[in-house]
Amino acid sequence: MRYLMTIVYDGSGYKGYQKQPKEKTIQSEIEKALKTINGGKKVDIHASGRTDAGVHAYNQKAHFDLNKNMTVDQIRNGINSLIPDDIYIKNVVEVDDDFHARFNVKAKEYIYIINLGEYNPIEKNYVCQYNDKLDLVEMERAMKYLEGTHNFKSFTKTDEDRDDYVRTIVQATLIRDMKNSNKIILSFLGTGFMRYMVRNIVGTLLAVGEGKLKSEDIIEILKAEDRKRAFKTASPEGLYLKDVLY
Amino acid sequence: MRYLMTIVYDGSGYKGYQKQPKEKTIQSEIEKALKTINGGKKVDIHASGRTDAGVHAYNQKAHFDLNKNMTVDQIRNGINSLIPDDIYIKNVVEVDDDFHARFNVKAKEYIYIINLGEYNPIEKNYVCQYNDKLDLVEMERAMKYLEGTHNFKSFTKTDEDRDDYVRTIVQATLIRDMKNSNKIILSFLGTGFMRYMVRNIVGTLLAVGEGKLKSEDIIEILKAEDRKRAFKTASPEGLYLKDVLY
Repeated sequence: MRYLMTIVYDGSGYKGYQKQPKEKTIQSEIEKALKTINGGKKVDIHASGRTDAGVHAYNQKAHFDLNKNMTVDQIRNGINSLIPDDIYIKNVVEVDDDFHARFNVKAKEYIYIINLGEYNPIEKNYVCQYNDKLDLVEMERAMKYLEGTHNFKSFTKTDEDRDDYVRTIVQATLIRDMKNSNKIILSFLGTGFMRYMVRNIVGTLLAVGEGKLKSEDIIEILKAEDRKRAFKTASPEGLYLKDVLY
Repeated sequence: MRYLMTIVYDGSGYKGYQKQPKEKTIQSEIEKALKTINGGKKVDIHASGRTDAGVHAYNQKAHFDLNKNMTVDQIRNGINSLIPDDIYIKNVVEVDDDFHARFNVKAKEYIYIINLGEYNPIEKNYVCQYNDKLDLVEMERAMKYLEGTHNFKSFTKTDEDRDDYVRTIVQATLIRDMKNSNKIILSFLGTGFMRYMVRNIVGTLLAVGEGKLKSEDIIEILKAEDRKRAFKTASPEGLYLKDVLY
């Protein structure tokens, strides 16, 4: 039987989603739990993609195969009872044998939360703190230039094994919650995101907000296909994988 | 010169506000910073009161004496640069030499946040998770019986040195934010709170919400002046010292 699970996690205490030798990761904690449930036999889980150290997820998805006489709720509760309480399995559903949590992804949504208000130590791992004024209107304009199908090579880590840097950002939105919390949320819905892509985009949008770039400079940066043209990678704590759509 | 500072902290990683030998506490971190600023000479800080391990504060207040040729902003920035980033000094102001952060308190406000929605691992240190249904109307009624001047001995730790258990709760309110977040906030504004008082009250209010008690049973529990009559202490992570008024 193949199952798909929805995972929520606080990435603060982890070296990222993906398993690494000797490091505490989300994947390794869940695989450890599944191994116990599976009577000591290893279970591989396959996620929609990795998230980096300090990045959070509301609806990460991962599939795995398990042949146990258990209901999906028993599997879910079993895993939850064995993993640390900063990871939570929201649900487990049965899927077809050929379903793949990464290859079948139709779209993903990431959000990035920026606090423009006073520093709040209670939220330090959950928002990106920004202490200067930002031109939000210019940032919104810049986000519109990111929408559509583009080569995003300027916004990711160049990988010798990769030759396809074309992705589609379906929607890029700036949501203001200034009245309640002095926060802005940058939301990105797209068909696929490469390593550091959202954080590099956010870093560049911050440069637009600071007046170091104009919104239309985004067009040139995309065309350059050169990481050096974009600005620095924004910090991980503001980033959340919000949804994975199949 | 005597100064009053406003302190925000995430209590998750601390053994409470108050200094204890060999334990990591809010007070000891700030006193360590002030000692450095004061050229190695110890500075005692006096807070409005302690908070327990895991309890947070938005506006804790503490006074201290310091004779340095520094502006209040220099002192504030100096302390902030020396303390961990889960503590933050919001401001420092000059006060009279006879001002005392504890003895001069007129009122304090505590809030207690309960999540009635699905468990969220990202908020695990910041809300009290409650998985069953609660009768919120009955809880609100019970809170009205707490308002006024009462002997709160049933709701605190009995202390041989203490004979005065009378306090005034000016206002006790239940705030619903069900639409946005499935959370409720219990807010308590009072002239003084004793050890575990808010958390013991919350634990008893939860018993009312569960139907184990009726709202008017609060009257009997107050009259009993016996800790055994109230219910268990609610967990610390939902509690915030929100304001201290002078």
